[in-house]
Amino acid sequence: MRMRRKPNLDKRMTACDEIRILNPEEYKGRWRDALGFDRICLEIGCGKGKFITETAMNEPNTLFIAIERDSNVIVMAMEKALSQGIKNLRFMNVDAGKLTEYFDEGELNRIYLNFSDPWPKSKQAKRRLTHANFLTQYDKVLDDKGEIFFKTDNEKLFEFSLNEMSGYGLALSNITFDLHSTDYPNVVTEYEERFSSQGMRIYRVEARKRNV
Amino acid sequence: MRMRRKPNLDKRMTACDEIRILNPEEYKGRWRDALGFDRICLEIGCGKGKFITETAMNEPNTLFIAIERDSNVIVMAMEKALSQGIKNLRFMNVDAGKLTEYFDEGELNRIYLNFSDPWPKSKQAKRRLTHANFLTQYDKVLDDKGEIFFKTDNEKLFEFSLNEMSGYGLALSNITFDLHSTDYPNVVTEYEERFSSQGMRIYRVEARKRNV
Repeated sequence: MRMRRKPNLDKRMTACDEIRILNPEEYKGRWRDALGFDRICLEIGCGKGKFITETAMNEPNTLFIAIERDSNVIVMAMEKALSQGIKNLRFMNVDAGKLTEYFDEGELNRIYLNFSDPWPKSKQAKRRLTHANFLTQYDKVLDDKGEIFFKTDNEKLFEFSLNEMSGYGLALSNITFDLHSTDYPNVVTEYEERFSSQGMRIYRVEARKRNV
Repeated sequence: MRMRRKPNLDKRMTACDEIRILNPEEYKGRWRDALGFDRICLEIGCGKGKFITETAMNEPNTLFIAIERDSNVIVMAMEKALSQGIKNLRFMNVDAGKLTEYFDEGELNRIYLNFSDPWPKSKQAKRRLTHANFLTQYDKVLDDKGEIFFKTDNEKLFEFSLNEMSGYGLALSNITFDLHSTDYPNVVTEYEERFSSQGMRIYRVEARKRNV
């Protein structure tokens, strides 16, 4: 069930046009040239944008693109990015299902999946963002050294994701069952901040293409 | 610290000579022919032998070899196997560190690692049976379709093992964080029986060579 559209949403969205990509298909194959960056990272499901705005500020020479299908939420992320004057971050209010329409083969360097919807019922498995069908898409749009950084508090989704990723042929590394007990560099999301302070553990894995 | 040798140990060991392999080096490269089996599975660290005796009874056409370095323990496993008249099971009172002296390349079909010592301190990592140095050995003695079946109740060891195995290039499958909640066929070890009845979860993974 979608949230009701917030009042003034269209107006607020329009006010973010500077960093909002309305026609991603038109950039396909020329993102790097059109936006002037050598390196592009994508976050799928950026929520209110804490993670991606902080990450973009940490790496000013990388272009970050944040996807979020919920316009009520992405508008907050965009307003945050605008208010902080971040130059290397763009937003797309789209679904993750059509990545190959927006990006050409090898056009991305990294994909972040943070606290994706677990879709707990087994008949919902295909909706999980780490399902093999999604991995096939990521495989196409990521370059040869492409990588997926995934974290979640949902153990079942993590278990599923390890199986899907390894089954797909990705090399897994830095697997941890308790991210906050490690030294891995970590930018915390809104969700993560709230739940890990309640003692919830965060699982994380990096998955890379095997170059055979 | 090793347990003190039990009284009459030598005598009890000798009474098991029928199923005890004293000179494994001499079988190297000819296990299948010498013992008359097409398929050979190895358990490293068989303890008191509940798992391997039951597994051997379930698969009478496979030869099972059980390694255990503690003679006080392996003697109980051997006595169990003898008393049950199992024909397709042999024992070796050796350490896992010299597998390549006992087995030729591709001579084994499967290796079982059940509740291996977690060696929790980081400087002990090389002793863990899923350390890359051991995986290198297993890789040599396993055939092209060779597989490693690993289960443990130790979360840290499991996390370490997933990283080592995927890092080594093995394909992981049937990863579960709670074996007893799944339908996977499972022969329970003595240790597992005791601890899972106390609510301890069992982690499991299958690792296979990638045939590239």
